Amino acid sequence: MRVPFETMKAEIKRVLLKAGMTEGKADACARVHTESSRDGVYSHGLNRVARFVDHIQKGWVDVNAEPSLIKQSGMFENYDGNLGPGVLNALFSINRATEVAKEQGIGIVALRNTNHWMRGGTYAWEAAEKGYIGICWTNTESCMPAWGAKNTCLGNNPLCIAIPREKGPIVLDMAMSQYSNGKLQVTRLKNESLPFPGGFDKEGNLTSNPGLIEESQRPLPAGYWKGSGLAMVLDLVVAILSNGLATAGIDKLSKGGSCVGCSQIFIAINPYLAGGKEFVERTLNETIAQIKSAEPVKEGGAIYFPGELAAKTRKENTEQGIPVDEGIWNELLRL
Amino acid sequence: MRVPFETMKAEIKRVLLKAGMTEGKADACARVHTESSRDGVYSHGLNRVARFVDHIQKGWVDVNAEPSLIKQSGMFENYDGNLGPGVLNALFSINRATEVAKEQGIGIVALRNTNHWMRGGTYAWEAAEKGYIGICWTNTESCMPAWGAKNTCLGNNPLCIAIPREKGPIVLDMAMSQYSNGKLQVTRLKNESLPFPGGFDKEGNLTSNPGLIEESQRPLPAGYWKGSGLAMVLDLVVAILSNGLATAGIDKLSKGGSCVGCSQIFIAINPYLAGGKEFVERTLNETIAQIKSAEPVKEGGAIYFPGELAAKTRKENTEQGIPVDEGIWNELLRL
Repeated sequence: MRVPFETMKAEIKRVLLKAGMTEGKADACARVHTESSRDGVYSHGLNRVARFVDHIQKGWVDVNAEPSLIKQSGMFENYDGNLGPGVLNALFSINRATEVAKEQGIGIVALRNTNHWMRGGTYAWEAAEKGYIGICWTNTESCMPAWGAKNTCLGNNPLCIAIPREKGPIVLDMAMSQYSNGKLQVTRLKNESLPFPGGFDKEGNLTSNPGLIEESQRPLPAGYWKGSGLAMVLDLVVAILSNGLATAGIDKLSKGGSCVGCSQIFIAINPYLAGGKEFVERTLNETIAQIKSAEPVKEGGAIYFPGELAAKTRKENTEQGIPVDEGIWNELLRL
Repeated sequence: MRVPFETMKAEIKRVLLKAGMTEGKADACARVHTESSRDGVYSHGLNRVARFVDHIQKGWVDVNAEPSLIKQSGMFENYDGNLGPGVLNALFSINRATEVAKEQGIGIVALRNTNHWMRGGTYAWEAAEKGYIGICWTNTESCMPAWGAKNTCLGNNPLCIAIPREKGPIVLDMAMSQYSNGKLQVTRLKNESLPFPGGFDKEGNLTSNPGLIEESQRPLPAGYWKGSGLAMVLDLVVAILSNGLATAGIDKLSKGGSCVGCSQIFIAINPYLAGGKEFVERTLNETIAQIKSAEPVKEGGAIYFPGELAAKTRKENTEQGIPVDEGIWNELLRL
C-alpha cells in the first residue's frame, strides 16, 4: 500500500495537533517524519509517530518547550533543548548553524537536554539544501557493547555528513552499529539472514541471525573496535561541547530507547571558504566519476555514493506514493 | 632488540640532517618518528624513515618548503603545504589551530598540497597535550575499493580525535580500512590469520588470509559500506575545505603509496567552551567507568578506551627501550 506525501503529512499533523502541538510545530514535525518515510527511512518516519506521541503523553517530551541560548562565542553557540521535541530542536539548531555560517563561514551549535531527532540525515540534508556542508551527530542511550565487553554500554551515536552539489548532495547517515534495530527486526520477520555478521549470540559467537542478536543484546559495532572507539569519542565530544549528558548520563535517566536528555551538535560550513564553486563541483564530480568507473563486484551492478539511493527512493516515492505497512497506517488513522 | 628513545631519535635526526634538513626541522621530524615507534605504531615511526628519505631524494618531498597562508577568515585558515615534509606541515597546522583556539575557542586549519603525515594520532595527541580537543583527518591515494567495487578507488583516510583529560587523553586514531597494510604484512609473515575477515580474495570471497588480500588488492572498509561511505565523505570535505586534491586528484599524480599532494584538516577546540573543567573531567571519567565496569568477553579480560593501549605501550617502551627490527635498525645506521 502506498500513501501520497501530502496525505501522510496531513494525517501525522492531525495526530500531532491532537497531542498538543501548535499549528506551525505540528506542520514542521509532520513534514520531517513524512520526508523520512519518503526517502526510505521508514523506521524513523511514519512508523515512529505512535511512539513519539506516547513519549509526549508520558511527559518525556514537552511539546511546547523551545531551545534557549546558554552560551555564545564567535561561531559557537550552546543551547538547552529543554526536553522539547527532538525534531524541532534539531531543525532549529541546524538552521541556526547555517545562519551563523552565512555570516562567519562556519556555524557550530551544540544542543543539550534534547530528545530523539528521529532520522539524523534530515539535518545534514537541510544544511546541504541551504548550500552548506552539514556535519551533525547525536549521542543516544546505551544500545551496544563496547569492543571487548558483553553488555551494552555505548550508544550507536549516528554521524551525518552532507556536501551540497548542483546535481544533488552527497549525504552520509551512519550509526556506529553495523545494523540498526529496525534492520534486525525486519530481517528476522522475513526469516532471513543478515548479509554479514551483525553481532554475537549468547555464547559469544559472531552471527548473521538477527533473532539471536536481539536476544543477546550484543549488536556489533561497525568495524568491530573501530566503530566502538568512534562511538565513544563522538559521545564524549558532543556531551562536552553541549555541556550535556553523555551516554552514561542518559542511561541514568532510565527512560529506555528514547534518547531523553541526549546531546547533539550541528555544524554548517560554507563549502566555498577556500575554493570557488567551479573547483568544488569539479572535485565532487571527479570523485563520483572515479568510484562509478570502478569495476562492480556483481556484473551489471552499480557503485553508489552516500545519499544516492535515498535520492532515488525519494523520487520513486514522490511519484508513486510512500509505501506503508497497513497495520501501522491504520493505527495512525485511529490516533 | 630494544633501543632507547634518545638513541633512536639521534640516529633518525642524523639521517635527516644528511638528507638536507635544517637542525630544527630534523629534530622535530626525528622526535615525531621516534614517538610513533615509542607508542607502538612501528609502521609509521623508525620503519618509515628510509622510505621518507627516498621520497626526499626523488624530489617528492621538498625538505626546505614551509606552509604558506592562502586564506584566513575568522577561526578558519587555509595553508599550502608546498610539498614540504608532511610531518612538519602537520605539526605546524595543529599548533596553529591550537593558537587560534586559544584566542577564539576553536581553530580550523585546512592544509593542501602536503605529504604523508606518518602517524595521524601524533597531531591529535599534540592538541590534547596542549589542552585542546583535536580533530584531524587526511586523505590518501586510493588503497581500497569502494563498497560494491572490485578495484581500489578510495583512500583509507585516517581520522583522529583526541580529548584532553587529567589522567591522560582519550585518543582515537583510525583509518577507514579494517586493517592497515602493515597489519596484513606482519600477519602474513607470521603465517597467521587475521582475527576477522579483512578483505576479499581474487574470487570475491571474504577472507582472513592476509596474503590473499594483498594479492587481490581488495582490503575491506571498516564496517563494509559504512567505512566506504565515511572514507569518501571525509576525502571530499578535506579537499574542498583546503582547496586541495581529493583522492581522485592524488591518484592522477601517480606517485604511488606516498600521499604526495594530499589534503589535511586540523581542528582544535577548547574543551571548556560550554562547561567547566569539573564537568568535563566528570563526564570523561563516568564514561570510562561505564565501559570499564561492563562484563568482559574473556574472563579476566579488559575493556580499553581509545588511546589507552598506546599510553601503556609508551610507558613500557620509555622504560625498557623501543623494540626494533634489527634489520631495519641496521639499515638506518648505514643511511
